[in-house]
Amino acid sequence: MALTPDQEQEINDSRGQTQETRRPTVAALEEVLFQAAPVLDHGFVRLVDYMGDDAAVVQAARVSYGAGTRHMREDRGLLRYLMRQAHTTPVEMCEIKLHVKLPIFIARQWIRHRTANVNELSGRYSVLDREFYIPAPENLARQSVSNRQGRGEVLSAEQAELVRDLLRADSEAAHDRYESLMSEDSPDDIATGGGSGLARELARMSLSLNYYTQWYWKVDLHNLLHFLRLRMDPHAQFEIRAYCDAIAALVARWVPLTWEAFCDYQANALSLSAGALDAVRRMLAGEAVDAESCGLSKREWDELMVSLGRPVG
Amino acid sequence: MALTPDQEQEINDSRGQTQETRRPTVAALEEVLFQAAPVLDHGFVRLVDYMGDDAAVVQAARVSYGAGTRHMREDRGLLRYLMRQAHTTPVEMCEIKLHVKLPIFIARQWIRHRTANVNELSGRYSVLDREFYIPAPENLARQSVSNRQGRGEVLSAEQAELVRDLLRADSEAAHDRYESLMSEDSPDDIATGGGSGLARELARMSLSLNYYTQWYWKVDLHNLLHFLRLRMDPHAQFEIRAYCDAIAALVARWVPLTWEAFCDYQANALSLSAGALDAVRRMLAGEAVDAESCGLSKREWDELMVSLGRPVG
Amino acid sequence: MALTPDQEQEINDSRGQTQETRRPTVAALEEVLFQAAPVLDHGFVRLVDYMGDDAAVVQAARVSYGAGTRHMREDRGLLRYLMRQAHTTPVEMCEIKLHVKLPIFIARQWIRHRTANVNELSGRYSVLDREFYIPAPENLARQSVSNRQGRGEVLSAEQAELVRDLLRADSEAAHDRYESLMSEDSPDDIATGGGSGLARELARMSLSLNYYTQWYWKVDLHNLLHFLRLRMDPHAQFEIRAYCDAIAALVARWVPLTWEAFCDYQANALSLSAGALDAVRRMLAGEAVDAESCGLSKREWDELMVSLGRPVG
Amino acid sequence: MALTPDQEQEINDSRGQTQETRRPTVAALEEVLFQAAPVLDHGFVRLVDYMGDDAAVVQAARVSYGAGTRHMREDRGLLRYLMRQAHTTPVEMCEIKLHVKLPIFIARQWIRHRTANVNELSGRYSVLDREFYIPAPENLARQSVSNRQGRGEVLSAEQAELVRDLLRADSEAAHDRYESLMSEDSPDDIATGGGSGLARELARMSLSLNYYTQWYWKVDLHNLLHFLRLRMDPHAQFEIRAYCDAIAALVARWVPLTWEAFCDYQANALSLSAGALDAVRRMLAGEAVDAESCGLSKREWDELMVSLGRPVG
Repeated sequence: MALTPDQEQEINDSRGQTQETRRPTVAALEEVLFQAAPVLDHGFVRLVDYMGDDAAVVQAARVSYGAGTRHMREDRGLLRYLMRQAHTTPVEMCEIKLHVKLPIFIARQWIRHRTANVNELSGRYSVLDREFYIPAPENLARQSVSNRQGRGEVLSAEQAELVRDLLRADSEAAHDRYESLMSEDSPDDIATGGGSGLARELARMSLSLNYYTQWYWKVDLHNLLHFLRLRMDPHAQFEIRAYCDAIAALVARWVPLTWEAFCDYQANALSLSAGALDAVRRMLAGEAVDAESCGLSKREWDELMVSLGRPVG
Repeated sequence: MALTPDQEQEINDSRGQTQETRRPTVAALEEVLFQAAPVLDHGFVRLVDYMGDDAAVVQAARVSYGAGTRHMREDRGLLRYLMRQAHTTPVEMCEIKLHVKLPIFIARQWIRHRTANVNELSGRYSVLDREFYIPAPENLARQSVSNRQGRGEVLSAEQAELVRDLLRADSEAAHDRYESLMSEDSPDDIATGGGSGLARELARMSLSLNYYTQWYWKVDLHNLLHFLRLRMDPHAQFEIRAYCDAIAALVARWVPLTWEAFCDYQANALSLSAGALDAVRRMLAGEAVDAESCGLSKREWDELMVSLGRPVG
Repeated sequence: MALTPDQEQEINDSRGQTQETRRPTVAALEEVLFQAAPVLDHGFVRLVDYMGDDAAVVQAARVSYGAGTRHMREDRGLLRYLMRQAHTTPVEMCEIKLHVKLPIFIARQWIRHRTANVNELSGRYSVLDREFYIPAPENLARQSVSNRQGRGEVLSAEQAELVRDLLRADSEAAHDRYESLMSEDSPDDIATGGGSGLARELARMSLSLNYYTQWYWKVDLHNLLHFLRLRMDPHAQFEIRAYCDAIAALVARWVPLTWEAFCDYQANALSLSAGALDAVRRMLAGEAVDAESCGLSKREWDELMVSLGRPVG
Repeated sequence: MALTPDQEQEINDSRGQTQETRRPTVAALEEVLFQAAPVLDHGFVRLVDYMGDDAAVVQAARVSYGAGTRHMREDRGLLRYLMRQAHTTPVEMCEIKLHVKLPIFIARQWIRHRTANVNELSGRYSVLDREFYIPAPENLARQSVSNRQGRGEVLSAEQAELVRDLLRADSEAAHDRYESLMSEDSPDDIATGGGSGLARELARMSLSLNYYTQWYWKVDLHNLLHFLRLRMDPHAQFEIRAYCDAIAALVARWVPLTWEAFCDYQANALSLSAGALDAVRRMLAGEAVDAESCGLSKREWDELMVSLGRPVG
């Protein structure tokens, strides 16, 4: 993960200080506050701040004068009801702030989720570090044959090592160029662009999309869960799922009852289309059903059978 | 303000509990946490939670590993720079949650600010209390003659008292009807709608726009300042300005340096249009200038002269 | 619906003019452009403008240089795929603008959908018309006994007529007061507030929540479908569902293929929670299953059985 | 700009078709509809669709039943009033859709403007073309000495040519690697990664930030003007300003009166901070004023003097 000693010191200093507060506080989350959870080869997710807890969702749903909670059991029931009915406004009443270090090509997927606050390291203002993402061998895979936008079979160990070497050499060379273009000091080394003192906002063009950037990202709990639902999906790219895993672990600590409800009613739920619902109804009534008779495509039918634990084909 | 003893008890219970936290904490804000600051005759603004402080803005601007602050003096300079250059993303990194009780016609203005999270008391689910807004005599004013959407001269004391009596009687009658329509118990009192047991979602139609509602409102600091800038403006309706005053007092406690910068570069700044800028330039160069010669309307010219402390007309 | 002759004339004038355009145009929608479709007793939905069509969604999904469509059959398949996979960004590429006249208490539900542009008639600037909503007898119903936020049994004809009379009288009296408070002309009629010339922004407090307001509302197709899914739901209040019906008819004209996909994969889909999915799997495998054995509440179980066409209880 | 013959044909086909519409239509904009206006070396801005015109802003501000316009002169006055008072909701009632081809590092700045709809070419799904941005010699400049995030002195012609050659060679090599990694066909050419058939979503990591991407971008007029105000600013990076110039030309065709008002009250306006306003007032009153006596920093004072056309220092 490559935190410098200075960075580790800064984090430890922050962790060392505690204050008194009247605000709702979650002990399980305080435990990991400010710590960097490693993701990929140099990335991390680091919890910087949070607002609210399970009870804060309940409190807002009840527009309460106090903490809003009654009994744990009633609160759990209310949270499950909210999630089931898609009454999302109380869930927006919790907020989390993360410091994330991630490859640029993943940052570009992430930023598409617009309902969040973002403050990114500026490549106009700062010089980016020599840190880039090289996939682990088991994550280097061939283009999927069945899915236009996914990966399939993993490369052989030998081929993976070769690809990693090539990516590493290219990435190092990109940072060499980047530094050389910005350099003021070597006017003689003209063959590498040395001495041009090129503006940072231009020189950064040399870097490749696997370079790491970082940002502060702040989001409410409802939009965070929506992000997780879309990006934890097996169809999402592996690298962003890796970040979602780290975030999911934080959410489970933070709001365990909301998280449980989310898993049951969203993440692990299955949406039956009108045609699929018709198929299920007829199957339960004892009819013999196939894709054609309920207007489903072959692919939809097969996926439905897998989801329902029925034999395919 | 009419907090019931139960509500006061709930608030005091919440205030009585403190926890340890590693999160940034603002002592001046903790002091007033959960307390209801009265606004208008029965409304209030009540701070429910907050995230971040002045240093959190600095921390995000620096994408820092620790608290992000250096010296108070440098931090103040950075905050002023951000406000001056309209670099608003770091200012979004603070968040506040308020519980507000306010008349419905003000809620309708307020909700137009879309970048916020809101959870309102549901008139489908709950019975609204018999609480309505009656303006103080000094806030009852005639339609402005110069401004199509404002108020002008204050009513005479006698007329104000009369208007207040009429509004009060009408509002009481509205709640009588509301209750009577929902009543299951008085089937005989048919002349008032008694016994129809009408659904709450329908009966509420009887209430007038000065009835109080309440909501939880959560917003980031940047969008809160934008809200304040538009709604503290003398052209905004008095009643919403009253809420802004209460909120401004919280913000000044919460993020004093950001608040100072906001006042200097936004709230108390003057925007010179291209024409007005031309006028000022020429005045400073010693030219005699009037509205016509710089393409300003009479009204713009007069307002400019007032802003610049010059004689009008 | 109470369009004045002047308003009808304005609408007809607009309808009478046609221009040449290179933009995608939907004939079925042009037919009804500008016309007011009546909703409730005085409300309407009026299509003011639109951008895009089914092909525009396809075009954006393909980031195409031309119209983006290939064959109707492929386009339909792509639209269904997008809706099924919740790939919503191309669906945001269509936009619609409506002029809506609606009761204030419905406007307050509607405005909670934040991702839209709204321009409402200002009660500070304009005097509101004497137009208020009185439910038809068949829509006056008692509070539901099973659902805290819904209506149940319809009132008897006699009782409904009585309630309508009371609501009508109250609403008329509210507008009388409103006018009298604003009046400059009758200083002698002091008992009704006459002659105080009260500012419009204050006098409007007298009006009740069933008064009509109007606004221009502009929204993209994705957010419109989301609005419809939530507000066409049987749990939504009847009055807002009435507006949704009128809007749904416009959408079906506008983007028939997207609308069909939306109905199949969203509006008429059924979400099975993790527990419900388990139940269905086990039922299909021939097991005897009940609520308890798959962790569903009684209510969830009953609703599931209804959805699946199985006997309840 | 490198449109392929197929792309030009698609554009021309779209331009060749016209339909009748009742919608407001802007002849000056129809003229350029679908045409690609070149930006930088291979980029473009291409108008794909639009909704509304100057009159549509007026219409919404008046919540009108017809077109909403009275006389050109009154409409202009209203539009200027709206812009001056920051009454932005009617300005949101116009919408525009653009197809933009732009370097990735500029796309990353652009996307920070969240209130817009975006559909980008997917690097998971498609193979990116061999097209990258090489700055023109006059746009290759050294890091600014006075501004941490800007560029200063232009490189010498000789040095610029050298830098361009280096960037070009690096970019070509990046695409070679990209293709070779994805290749299925050359298992023998193992030294370049050939034959690994690497998934597109991984291979794209090799590309550098000056590679072109493209998207459909749809935004309302208010948010577009806000985007232009921030990104046409001389402090914004040259490359994004180049896109703003192309867009500004479209806006001036589309809504000439709104554009004029925007220029006068926003783009060419000057915001005087509280301190600067104090300085101007005192200067106009004949006082001798300097930075210190009105609490301005040296930099603020100098910038103020330049803006006011006064001698600096």
